[in-house]
Amino acid sequence: MTAPDPVNLTDKLALFSDHWNPRIVGRYNGNEVRLAKLKGEFVWHSHAETDELFMVLKGHLNIEFRDGVRTLGPGEVLVVPRGVEHRPVAPEEVELLIMDREGEPNTGGEAASALTRARLETL
Amino acid sequence: MTAPDPVNLTDKLALFSDHWNPRIVGRYNGNEVRLAKLKGEFVWHSHAETDELFMVLKGHLNIEFRDGVRTLGPGEVLVVPRGVEHRPVAPEEVELLIMDREGEPNTGGEAASALTRARLETL
Repeated sequence: MTAPDPVNLTDKLALFSDHWNPRIVGRYNGNEVRLAKLKGEFVWHSHAETDELFMVLKGHLNIEFRDGVRTLGPGEVLVVPRGVEHRPVAPEEVELLIMDREGEPNTGGEAASALTRARLETL
Repeated sequence: MTAPDPVNLTDKLALFSDHWNPRIVGRYNGNEVRLAKLKGEFVWHSHAETDELFMVLKGHLNIEFRDGVRTLGPGEVLVVPRGVEHRPVAPEEVELLIMDREGEPNTGGEAASALTRARLETL
């Protein structure tokens, strides 16, 4: 077996510029490590069968919940439990790491929208 | 349901100073998000039933494999596949985020050592 190589998140983020289109940069225990750039308002959605981990790398992200909003800055992590409705909103561009189970669409299992990305590119 | 709160990694890291004693700061899909400070040489080990994700936050970490060494700096991620022998070595103190399945000892399932931490504190 060959030693696995490190992934430099800054280098990977430099490879794309579009918003709401996560890229896969690693795999861990049946989950995908994804990088994304977000700007603007996403759609309300939930993931029935996976928790979703957010870690902000640059900028600030608001995650709206039905009972309140949470704001994450660089070096902050939030895990949205499976089944919990949420809506990411980025007033300015934000760069972040996201983890979902393998193959999970970014908008969850229901109500595909124009922002749905069901098949993600691996960088 | 109450909106989950963000975890500030810098704030959590300020709560402890000992080496080789990971703390749990989050849970995701049956895995633990851990923070650790390392300095010196760990033991050779592997995890039979979990991949292990390393993300360096501060400093540099060498991860030795049987066929080579990889060095991670801040913002670099490496996933050690399950079953692969490895040994973390930190010439200077390093701060990092680690993910393992819930309950996994830091030294893996075999060969407990003086550095084994089987029950981790949650911060």
